[in-house]
Amino acid sequence: MDINEFRVRGKEMIDFIADYYENLDNMSPGSKVQPGYLYKLMPHEAPEDPESFEEIKSDIETKIMPGITHWQSGNFFGWYPSNNSFPSVLGDMVSFMFNTVGFSWICSPAATELETVVMDWLGKLIGLDKRFMAIKEDGTEGEGGGVIQGTASEAHIVAMIAAKEMKLEYLKMHGESDESICTSGYKLVAYFSDQTHSSGQKACNIIGCQARTIESDEQYRLTKEALQAAIKQDVEAGLLPFFVCATFGTTNTAAIDDISGIAEVAEAEKLWFHVDAAYAGASLVCPEFRPLARGIERADSFNFNPHKWMLTNFDCSALWVANAKYLVQSLSIHREYLPRVKNSTEFVKDYRDWQLPLGRRFRALKLWFVMRMYGASGIRAHIREHVRQAKWLEEQLVADGRFEIMAPVVFGLVVFRIKPGVFDASTSSLDDIVNSANAELVKCINSDGRVFLVGTKLRGVDVLRPAIGSSHGTSENTTRLLQVIQECSEIVIARFS
Amino acid sequence: MDINEFRVRGKEMIDFIADYYENLDNMSPGSKVQPGYLYKLMPHEAPEDPESFEEIKSDIETKIMPGITHWQSGNFFGWYPSNNSFPSVLGDMVSFMFNTVGFSWICSPAATELETVVMDWLGKLIGLDKRFMAIKEDGTEGEGGGVIQGTASEAHIVAMIAAKEMKLEYLKMHGESDESICTSGYKLVAYFSDQTHSSGQKACNIIGCQARTIESDEQYRLTKEALQAAIKQDVEAGLLPFFVCATFGTTNTAAIDDISGIAEVAEAEKLWFHVDAAYAGASLVCPEFRPLARGIERADSFNFNPHKWMLTNFDCSALWVANAKYLVQSLSIHREYLPRVKNSTEFVKDYRDWQLPLGRRFRALKLWFVMRMYGASGIRAHIREHVRQAKWLEEQLVADGRFEIMAPVVFGLVVFRIKPGVFDASTSSLDDIVNSANAELVKCINSDGRVFLVGTKLRGVDVLRPAIGSSHGTSENTTRLLQVIQECSEIVIARFS
Repeated sequence: MDINEFRVRGKEMIDFIADYYENLDNMSPGSKVQPGYLYKLMPHEAPEDPESFEEIKSDIETKIMPGITHWQSGNFFGWYPSNNSFPSVLGDMVSFMFNTVGFSWICSPAATELETVVMDWLGKLIGLDKRFMAIKEDGTEGEGGGVIQGTASEAHIVAMIAAKEMKLEYLKMHGESDESICTSGYKLVAYFSDQTHSSGQKACNIIGCQARTIESDEQYRLTKEALQAAIKQDVEAGLLPFFVCATFGTTNTAAIDDISGIAEVAEAEKLWFHVDAAYAGASLVCPEFRPLARGIERADSFNFNPHKWMLTNFDCSALWVANAKYLVQSLSIHREYLPRVKNSTEFVKDYRDWQLPLGRRFRALKLWFVMRMYGASGIRAHIREHVRQAKWLEEQLVADGRFEIMAPVVFGLVVFRIKPGVFDASTSSLDDIVNSANAELVKCINSDGRVFLVGTKLRGVDVLRPAIGSSHGTSENTTRLLQVIQECSEIVIARFS
Repeated sequence: MDINEFRVRGKEMIDFIADYYENLDNMSPGSKVQPGYLYKLMPHEAPEDPESFEEIKSDIETKIMPGITHWQSGNFFGWYPSNNSFPSVLGDMVSFMFNTVGFSWICSPAATELETVVMDWLGKLIGLDKRFMAIKEDGTEGEGGGVIQGTASEAHIVAMIAAKEMKLEYLKMHGESDESICTSGYKLVAYFSDQTHSSGQKACNIIGCQARTIESDEQYRLTKEALQAAIKQDVEAGLLPFFVCATFGTTNTAAIDDISGIAEVAEAEKLWFHVDAAYAGASLVCPEFRPLARGIERADSFNFNPHKWMLTNFDCSALWVANAKYLVQSLSIHREYLPRVKNSTEFVKDYRDWQLPLGRRFRALKLWFVMRMYGASGIRAHIREHVRQAKWLEEQLVADGRFEIMAPVVFGLVVFRIKPGVFDASTSSLDDIVNSANAELVKCINSDGRVFLVGTKLRGVDVLRPAIGSSHGTSENTTRLLQVIQECSEIVIARFS
């Protein structure tokens, strides 16, 4: 394909994308295919000779499209949103155009430097403390800064590696001589709540330390007291606490841990304090949400995903550290073929030392496009509209009388279930019936096909958790969601009564 | 930006990209900016109100472009190539359109299933042993398979995690009772050569095991004998060998380790055997290169980067494992909100258990576009043309008389230097002079600006290592490279004589 054909095909592809978004609202957001469907439709080897763009396009329509769960549909309320936006896509197209591999500054100075600039922009936009800025108000370089990771999982791993480095250095400085302790993660313990994202446990598996899961309180929050008690027990057992993660907006219920309290414990116990705000961090663009996150200014690392709820296509996970020393110390490797800018490190980050891989895409471009083309005001409006719709949905569900809200509605997530009172209370297995009915409600809604959502279990209780936050949805989609919930509930209640 | 504006802006962007590629050959491939240049040109906060697409496009021209090292230019010969191609870009545009987050099959069945299909296609295309196929010839599921990672670094980490899991299981089964050994990477040793990519050492830092670097032979290869000797020494010291990496095409010189010999040792010592073919693996699409890789059929894991030399834009790193058991065992985490397809795992991979992060992009699309739109024949032609040009460059440099080739030219990499005989042999510091002259030659070539390349050091010897492999270059670019090398050498030789 030469440049001239690309001009033609590229524009066809733009229309293909635009047509997709034009029709998206009329398509069922969930896929209905059976496991293994695609293998049967496909040849089992790559073609020997080139095939045409038309053939591939047609296969997308007939073979790929049926197997797509349409995350961009306004009728998609599953998990958490995976925002994209047209400005973001345009920004990523520029990134593809250059296709640089930015492992060192010289690999494309603009890729490194734009990342430094936009991560400071983004940090200021969400009101992060100036400890996290790469460039201080006086124009000199700070000790920390932001970096774009692929996912919150990677941010979690990276933060934990820095934490381990910090702890091992501390132990060695304080005379620890047991080699098994000083050279490995052995005896190190990281703290999470039972609501922390799975990436916490996975990070422990990867770096080889122990994970301690603490029971959250009745509102699914990690408390200061529970953390203190767990640490006390572990220290008495000879273990070495080194890391704690507080979540601002958990996956199950968007609960907010006691961030200030955890910050105090982390300081007292010399733990690395990581705040995972993967989903709800985007809300901090609106000043009215910032009081909920009090304490994050004391974190060692803070992470949120613009690719969830801030109009930036996957992947783009923003991580800030207050001090990059331990990160760089543990992840930096020198090789002759990996040049650094000599004698002039000011403003120049070697972001390869801030992440797991060596190579990196020019992801700053899409964030730059999003922040400029929406402006701070546009991003705030995006967030506030979804929160407004979520509150509206909450009100409607309460007013309906058949539902109960299972967690405070703070952001775009509404956690609810059909309440037990709707069913025959005289049966001894009421809990089971309510659970089965609510699990059935999820299935009924998704097989109806007008909207898509997922359920979860909260301490054994089945609930539904539609998340409002699509960049392509409107309040009409939320109205439709309510309607489908109500219609399907009628069917399910009749079946279980 | 609504859909109609996207139709307009998107097409403008296609023309912007096409114009860029049309002009690329006339632009200097290396950036000339000074560190910190961009911060001075940028506002220090995101704008409050939306800005126009024109403003951003103009900033790309005036502020971003000067800071770009043009990896896609035919005049770029730095590091290893970072291929993109128009078919690949079109495929990635479809991925952006869907913007799915494929952590579970249900998140978009097509995303998981197309990855399984195209990784088998790709494995067959490079002649990989059937042990690595996800779906066996009889249509049933294999024990292993391929998965797309972001980078070879991630593939390295993932392979090492599986290796650790395998070793710890083995130790426990054989009665090891020391808790510090059984729960951490303590005492585990991974083996590399001094030419192995930095990602090997970095992976050890991340998972917390020891890295042992073995001196390569005079042709920069890791040999069976050197590996055996190192293992013997370590075992005698009470350490636990668990992992070895052989490289097919090292970063410095594209050297090929003794893969068959290393496979034997790995089997005898029960090590996980990983083959890193990040760059040169693409050559295996051509059968004539396969004898060089004999032994990879005995590997536990094999990795190469289509994003280097196989026309697929960054990031796309292909990893295969012969048995996924240990991977899944160490990286799998269950949560209610991460559903699996129940009672029907045939053909259904949960690739989140095959990688570090949870979320994943739909990268199979671009590989699918590339393999279909080029066909196997087109990809082979791409590889062979670069190898032909590299051999031509080698001949010209030898014929010139002033240069010596420092490593066999097998793929697209030509490692050379101005030879010592050109300088005054009577001086006692000849080695220093030759090194300084060759380091100066790199600088002279890059400041000339017509082409871009990098140098490296081989056991203290400065060499140049242009890598031929651009998807947008032709033999004219290689001719230009030779011309610039010769002109700059004349200047440098005069200066150092």
